[in-house]
Amino acid sequence: MASARPSGEETLIARYFKPLASDPGAFDLVDDAAILKTVGEDVVVTTDVVVTTDAVVEGVHFLKDDPPDTIARKALRTNLSDLAAKGAAPVGFVLTLALRDADEAWLGPFALALGEDAKAFGCPLLGGDTVSTPGPLMISITAFGRVPAGKMVRRSGAKPGDRLVVTGTIGDAALGLDILKVGPLATALADDAAGQEMLIARYRVPQPRNALAKAVCDHASAAMDVSDGLAGDLAKLCAASGVSAAIDLSSIPLSAAGRKLLASGAVSIETIVSGGDDYEILCAISDDCYERFAHEAMQAGIAVTTIGTVIAGTADPRFLDAQGRELSLHRRSYSHF
Amino acid sequence: MASARPSGEETLIARYFKPLASDPGAFDLVDDAAILKTVGEDVVVTTDVVVTTDAVVEGVHFLKDDPPDTIARKALRTNLSDLAAKGAAPVGFVLTLALRDADEAWLGPFALALGEDAKAFGCPLLGGDTVSTPGPLMISITAFGRVPAGKMVRRSGAKPGDRLVVTGTIGDAALGLDILKVGPLATALADDAAGQEMLIARYRVPQPRNALAKAVCDHASAAMDVSDGLAGDLAKLCAASGVSAAIDLSSIPLSAAGRKLLASGAVSIETIVSGGDDYEILCAISDDCYERFAHEAMQAGIAVTTIGTVIAGTADPRFLDAQGRELSLHRRSYSHF
Repeated sequence: MASARPSGEETLIARYFKPLASDPGAFDLVDDAAILKTVGEDVVVTTDVVVTTDAVVEGVHFLKDDPPDTIARKALRTNLSDLAAKGAAPVGFVLTLALRDADEAWLGPFALALGEDAKAFGCPLLGGDTVSTPGPLMISITAFGRVPAGKMVRRSGAKPGDRLVVTGTIGDAALGLDILKVGPLATALADDAAGQEMLIARYRVPQPRNALAKAVCDHASAAMDVSDGLAGDLAKLCAASGVSAAIDLSSIPLSAAGRKLLASGAVSIETIVSGGDDYEILCAISDDCYERFAHEAMQAGIAVTTIGTVIAGTADPRFLDAQGRELSLHRRSYSHF
Repeated sequence: MASARPSGEETLIARYFKPLASDPGAFDLVDDAAILKTVGEDVVVTTDVVVTTDAVVEGVHFLKDDPPDTIARKALRTNLSDLAAKGAAPVGFVLTLALRDADEAWLGPFALALGEDAKAFGCPLLGGDTVSTPGPLMISITAFGRVPAGKMVRRSGAKPGDRLVVTGTIGDAALGLDILKVGPLATALADDAAGQEMLIARYRVPQPRNALAKAVCDHASAAMDVSDGLAGDLAKLCAASGVSAAIDLSSIPLSAAGRKLLASGAVSIETIVSGGDDYEILCAISDDCYERFAHEAMQAGIAVTTIGTVIAGTADPRFLDAQGRELSLHRRSYSHF
């Protein structure tokens, strides 16, 4: 008689993923479902559960040769970035992992890094499904967050006169991807190993701005995370809010490497504002709220920069250079189809 | 200047999936996240949110030639089946769709069938992510359900003396898959087109037992859905509960076609009890609760059959024939790795 010993799938889950399932609602990953806590420690406040889902596919969102630990972090952090932009505190996540085989040399560092991030961001694994695929590796994560009832920050609340603010720097990840693909920027930055490394790290491992979530929740009138390119994502926020925008190109925050590449002419501002994978927060904030927001951002250690203004109307957002000339954009963002 | 008209991805979402997003918490799929309602209409009862996730991969969980409508139904119903087995009422789901291309002839019937099932089971689309993949089609769904607080039915509550009960019939889907793959059963059932069709339908379109969820919640001491084979799934339930079981093979409910194939020797009972994709509920019910459970099942129009008894101990569950001989199982269930 065949023993009822665990299958390969169960062994894999117990070995690699049970250590990540620290929440009691995960039942150590041995049940068919998990329980999502819907109240925080402060049970006086009624909360809403925010749900977001983002998948990463080998060859599309990450490269075949990317290290397993950075793939794990990117898969979780793209979701954490959505929670941050919605003003929500992380609660947990479920994971679907489609693997060609159960390769321990890959799974070990993948699960370790996923566990480190889950702990660092307070977002434990609640459950999941592990399936085999003959095709590319794919990781789909659904993450849960908590906001006070009715307080999720939508894309749709931007008002004329609001400042448009972004966190961090824009464009780095797209430049990093070009370098990884041995595109022209690898040559342009040949003498700057540290700059190259920083841009690659920005592509592989997003830095979601969860430390800013409460300030976004308290002060932003609209917000979203910039994942498909600033220009395209801003257009989406404006469309949802029924407004337009004027952006001052010279105020868009760039990294030192980004600034160097732009100054040398190796890269255009269009590439920077339409490149994907920034995972920064774009938000609209009224003048009344801005001072407190900026103060809280400083306390959280997150750089925030005003890049423009929400204006009335439904025209496409305009990107203006220092001379007031409008940039003509041929491509605003990444689309899968 | 490039127009801010919707991308291919946004058009696809608006055309095919917005009609499924009937819940106000889905924000018509134009935000980055959804809000999950955590209270039912009866707000006096505190509820828990049950979360489950199941993915289906082309060539693994469905066949390349399966019609798009049955693929959609299977992807959602495998999750609905988990909710039913946990005693939870559906609340909604999020969808990750990995597509090679945006083929309208495929997406149309896929989305239509998904919408029909979402409506029929009261489980609206809340959000999702659509990504491109160079590999096989993959659909990952995370579904949410609601139970009264603390009342999710676990795998771990089975007690010695409890009856072991299954819904519907066992083994049909595995037989249907054999027929689709033009295995030996296609020949054995050559004269029974209706039988073949029924078995294939059982493989392609599971019948989740959500109408029984409340009875499971109210009366079952442990439950799970049978998705990887009855023998293996029973072993998991017993292991989680710290018990063993004795199953009467002759009482396992079979369809007419299944019974015919077994009687003719074309298929063994081992294939039936270890074949995957049943999506029936297996539960443990005390004698005290059984009468009410059976009555409610009858009212719900769902066949339930007692197939054995929970016994003390931690030995592997035993499968006994009419003469009391134990079946030697070489394979208990499907495992991906």
